[in-house]
Amino acid sequence: MLQTRRLLLTGILVFTTALSTLAQLPRLERVEPAFWWTGMHEPFLQLIVHGDKIAEKEVSLTYPGVTLQEVHKVENPNYLFVDINISAAANPGTFPIRFTKKGQKDIVYNYELKKREGGIKAQGVNSSDFVYLIMPDRFANGDKNNDVVKGMQETSLNRDSMYKRHGGDIQGIIDHLGYLQDMGVTALWMTPLVTNDQPAASYHGYAATENYRIDPRFGSNELYKVLADSLHKRGMKLIQDLVHNHIGSQHWTMKDLPMKNWIHQWPAFTRSSFRAAPLMDPYAAPSDQKIMTEGWFDVHMPDLDQKNPYVRRYFTQSHIWWIEYAGVDGFRLDTYPYNDADFMAEWGKAIKAAYPEFTYFGEVWVRSGPEQVFFTQGNTVNRGFDTQLAGITDFQSLWAIAGALNEKPGWDEGAVRLYATLVQDYQYQDPMRNVVFLDNHDLSRFYSVVKENKQKYKAALAWLLTTRGIPQLYYGAEIGMKNFSAPDGLVREDFQGGWAGDAKNKFTAAGRDAAENELFDYVRTIATYRKQHPVLQTGKLMQYVPLDNVYTYFRYNADNTVMIVLNPNEKEVAVSPARFTERVAGFTQAKDIVTGKTWPLSDSLRIPAESTQILELLK
Amino acid sequence: MLQTRRLLLTGILVFTTALSTLAQLPRLERVEPAFWWTGMHEPFLQLIVHGDKIAEKEVSLTYPGVTLQEVHKVENPNYLFVDINISAAANPGTFPIRFTKKGQKDIVYNYELKKREGGIKAQGVNSSDFVYLIMPDRFANGDKNNDVVKGMQETSLNRDSMYKRHGGDIQGIIDHLGYLQDMGVTALWMTPLVTNDQPAASYHGYAATENYRIDPRFGSNELYKVLADSLHKRGMKLIQDLVHNHIGSQHWTMKDLPMKNWIHQWPAFTRSSFRAAPLMDPYAAPSDQKIMTEGWFDVHMPDLDQKNPYVRRYFTQSHIWWIEYAGVDGFRLDTYPYNDADFMAEWGKAIKAAYPEFTYFGEVWVRSGPEQVFFTQGNTVNRGFDTQLAGITDFQSLWAIAGALNEKPGWDEGAVRLYATLVQDYQYQDPMRNVVFLDNHDLSRFYSVVKENKQKYKAALAWLLTTRGIPQLYYGAEIGMKNFSAPDGLVREDFQGGWAGDAKNKFTAAGRDAAENELFDYVRTIATYRKQHPVLQTGKLMQYVPLDNVYTYFRYNADNTVMIVLNPNEKEVAVSPARFTERVAGFTQAKDIVTGKTWPLSDSLRIPAESTQILELLK
Repeated sequence: MLQTRRLLLTGILVFTTALSTLAQLPRLERVEPAFWWTGMHEPFLQLIVHGDKIAEKEVSLTYPGVTLQEVHKVENPNYLFVDINISAAANPGTFPIRFTKKGQKDIVYNYELKKREGGIKAQGVNSSDFVYLIMPDRFANGDKNNDVVKGMQETSLNRDSMYKRHGGDIQGIIDHLGYLQDMGVTALWMTPLVTNDQPAASYHGYAATENYRIDPRFGSNELYKVLADSLHKRGMKLIQDLVHNHIGSQHWTMKDLPMKNWIHQWPAFTRSSFRAAPLMDPYAAPSDQKIMTEGWFDVHMPDLDQKNPYVRRYFTQSHIWWIEYAGVDGFRLDTYPYNDADFMAEWGKAIKAAYPEFTYFGEVWVRSGPEQVFFTQGNTVNRGFDTQLAGITDFQSLWAIAGALNEKPGWDEGAVRLYATLVQDYQYQDPMRNVVFLDNHDLSRFYSVVKENKQKYKAALAWLLTTRGIPQLYYGAEIGMKNFSAPDGLVREDFQGGWAGDAKNKFTAAGRDAAENELFDYVRTIATYRKQHPVLQTGKLMQYVPLDNVYTYFRYNADNTVMIVLNPNEKEVAVSPARFTERVAGFTQAKDIVTGKTWPLSDSLRIPAESTQILELLK
Repeated sequence: MLQTRRLLLTGILVFTTALSTLAQLPRLERVEPAFWWTGMHEPFLQLIVHGDKIAEKEVSLTYPGVTLQEVHKVENPNYLFVDINISAAANPGTFPIRFTKKGQKDIVYNYELKKREGGIKAQGVNSSDFVYLIMPDRFANGDKNNDVVKGMQETSLNRDSMYKRHGGDIQGIIDHLGYLQDMGVTALWMTPLVTNDQPAASYHGYAATENYRIDPRFGSNELYKVLADSLHKRGMKLIQDLVHNHIGSQHWTMKDLPMKNWIHQWPAFTRSSFRAAPLMDPYAAPSDQKIMTEGWFDVHMPDLDQKNPYVRRYFTQSHIWWIEYAGVDGFRLDTYPYNDADFMAEWGKAIKAAYPEFTYFGEVWVRSGPEQVFFTQGNTVNRGFDTQLAGITDFQSLWAIAGALNEKPGWDEGAVRLYATLVQDYQYQDPMRNVVFLDNHDLSRFYSVVKENKQKYKAALAWLLTTRGIPQLYYGAEIGMKNFSAPDGLVREDFQGGWAGDAKNKFTAAGRDAAENELFDYVRTIATYRKQHPVLQTGKLMQYVPLDNVYTYFRYNADNTVMIVLNPNEKEVAVSPARFTERVAGFTQAKDIVTGKTWPLSDSLRIPAESTQILELLK
């Protein structure tokens, strides 16, 4: 399957070239990015040009402020990489790029330089946000017309099958932004929406076959922009999920590889070890490092060779394109440790140079603090260079909350895990940029992790929304959706009510049962409080060594102090405020932000079994 | 018990003052250090002077090259701290320090400045060493005359009682240096030998009542020096165990505290939390930090106030004194995290300035890598200052070897723990300075930890002597002594044969049973190979991601390559050398350094169940 194959494209691609040109051979099959903008931070742009024996042709262009810098021929004569420079003097407009060969008719691609749009974009995501993660195929089907798109490889739609498409789409998400905003959500992260024209599991999103195009079964580039605009109008943000590491086996470049080292080639299929440790191990065997970063993530996911400057440029430009085109506010970077570290640093610098407020966080799915911190930026650990990665998905705090609620308490077990994990924050440049979560599309749903114990689950939700960092909720977590990640399809069930004809509509209070409403209201109450009180967004944190398996911490700023007490024990505990002198001094009462109940601080606080209390201190 | 008490001393202290002076009141009870040397690195010396109302007197001295710099009066008029400067011009000799008050007879202390002895001292301990840890009361009784010393508080001797004295002493150790040297040991660390004149558990050693005196029940200062000289003659080294953090409740200064802040005072007895985490926690409550470092280690162990410059000076000088007096080669620092960090850095600089080759390592008994590395020197993690601590007791690798041998294998469990722990070495300035061990006087003996599985135990011993760092063996581990640390006395049983009349003498092959000889011979064979082959001392290490719960690593240098394969599984495994191409290329055979058996590297290596193979590769 690694042989270079060449297939005729199916014609679903959008060209600005004249149809008359396309009708002839040799023809131009693709130019990417299809258009660009004037006035961008970086004047340099590299076009990938794909067409039958295109490398035999001369390239020329004439446009004020735009110069053709260099034309690169590569192994495959069907590609050219064309470097152009767009100076600050260039005005928006369209100009022909001419591909000529003596004795053949010219091919002309009319390249458009658009004017940059104003408005909200690239805002960055930070600890003031509350992120909601959606798997678009499984959330809501807003447009039945795109359920099946003719000509694409996967055409079946079967809601009963975990790994088939269910029909959820961008319109479905747009339709429910009110639900999310009401709940207190401020930012949406969707698993990738770019085209995955793969024969199987195309709902998944992590096997891209296009870089510049939303999967038509999810909608269109234009609809994605509508989603971004709708979010921004509501004061919400858009996070795009990027995969640098790999592409789908049916990615358009796989059908006619530009060069052998576009991807990592192995004599026989070789899977990644999924072990990030050799990357930091001072005793690592180079072969162990290679298999981690150059092994394929899966049979259907060829591993990009990120040392290849053409790969680097192609992907980086597409990411900048999405920010500029749709107004994306942040990126989530899939499988971060599997990438070439030098590339990711270079990439990060390019993104930040272009959009200084923009932020991104990397998925770093590892089992220990030292492994996790290794990938983050700053000089807090000695990696020898700056990764430029401000934030990570904080798996360590996830293991901690799970341990806190499920383990038999011990010196190192139980509630102390939450404490001990935050202690390791001394190694981060700024741990407030870490994304905290209870579950996601790859993990067992946390309600199942705590054995559907509603009290414990609420304790976890309370922790999620009050600890340091950027909280992220997985769709359906607010109504206690459940299941374990083996097999992973089970944690990607449909959100009931997202499909016309669903028996129940969980987007409404009437459609939810009592337990679901209890959970929803709990999330909504805390998220709303969080939204209204900067203390839970950016306030300092102070935590105390747990005693009797009870974990107490505070968020505080000049205006407010909030005391959070997590009691995972099976019985009520009495907590004396006197111990927390640094933070309770000057206050006389504690008000439960969920129930509104007020207690005097002179007494011991009675913390119910398996619960977290969030208490605003009052003078 | 914290009230300042004043008791008459019992007269066991050695003075150079004339008896005629002592017979009168006011009298001089103590001057420390009792003598010093000319030509030391630091010209400054602070004498602690204790005597009834001594602060009422004027101090004077006259000696070429020596000047009286300052005399400090403190809260308690029975103390003076006398700063003197000993210039490079000062010659060895004795001079009177005169304490005068009008109308009273002068007190004169004849202070001796000795000539520094040449010879071996302060060599430093490093990864070329193999350290043997002895609890002196429990190893061998070489001198029955000192079993009970009249006038001391604990006078019972009862070998049947875990917490009473058993009579082991320095002479007993000297008598068995041949046994240790033959086994391959190169350095001795003994739990503290300074006087512990406590009413209970005085065998323990960590409740010092004197700083400058070997406990007479262990021997004498002079005999300690004989031990050092005996070790040095054999090419072995002496490690002294220091306790900076606390003293015994019967320490001489406790009977007449120089000042309130000599120790940390609490309104009621307050124990340390034993939690080092708040020291690095960016969210720590100051009260949690205070209770860790200022809380007492035990009722009988007052916590020194190390911010007090008199405390700092008194302890630091006593440590320099021991190096100079006895020729100590290295220190082990007890309860390292409990100390004042600034003091420990200052102390380390003073020691290293005086003895550049000298080394020391700290006991850092914590549960995670980030907690452990926090205390070590270098800028690999951001503590904001340099701790000056080169090495630590590597508890993380201990948890790892225990997990490797006892756990059901999993993604993060079993053999992979050894691998993962070494990965975290990227955070150390030089992990080769860490001390690796299987057990010590506070921990369950490892033979019990592996449920007396002799094969697994041998696997652990093989790992201990071949991994990176400075290996340390606890006395009796070489013959499979066992027991769990709760209660801790059980892991401090006598070494059989150390007492006249013992039924068996395990110091001899004839006295050991077959299993004991098998273990002893195993340790001796590997330790001897290690001693003879620098590759296992200072060679580089390369490790591979474990597969099938088998951990493979290499030590290599320009001369040798040694392959170590640890198989904790219950069945034999076949390991193909081909995977380890970086290290096996160029070699054709592997020779088991224990059995001498040779295998071709072209075949798979058959690694027996629950074993570690140490294979020297041959061309």
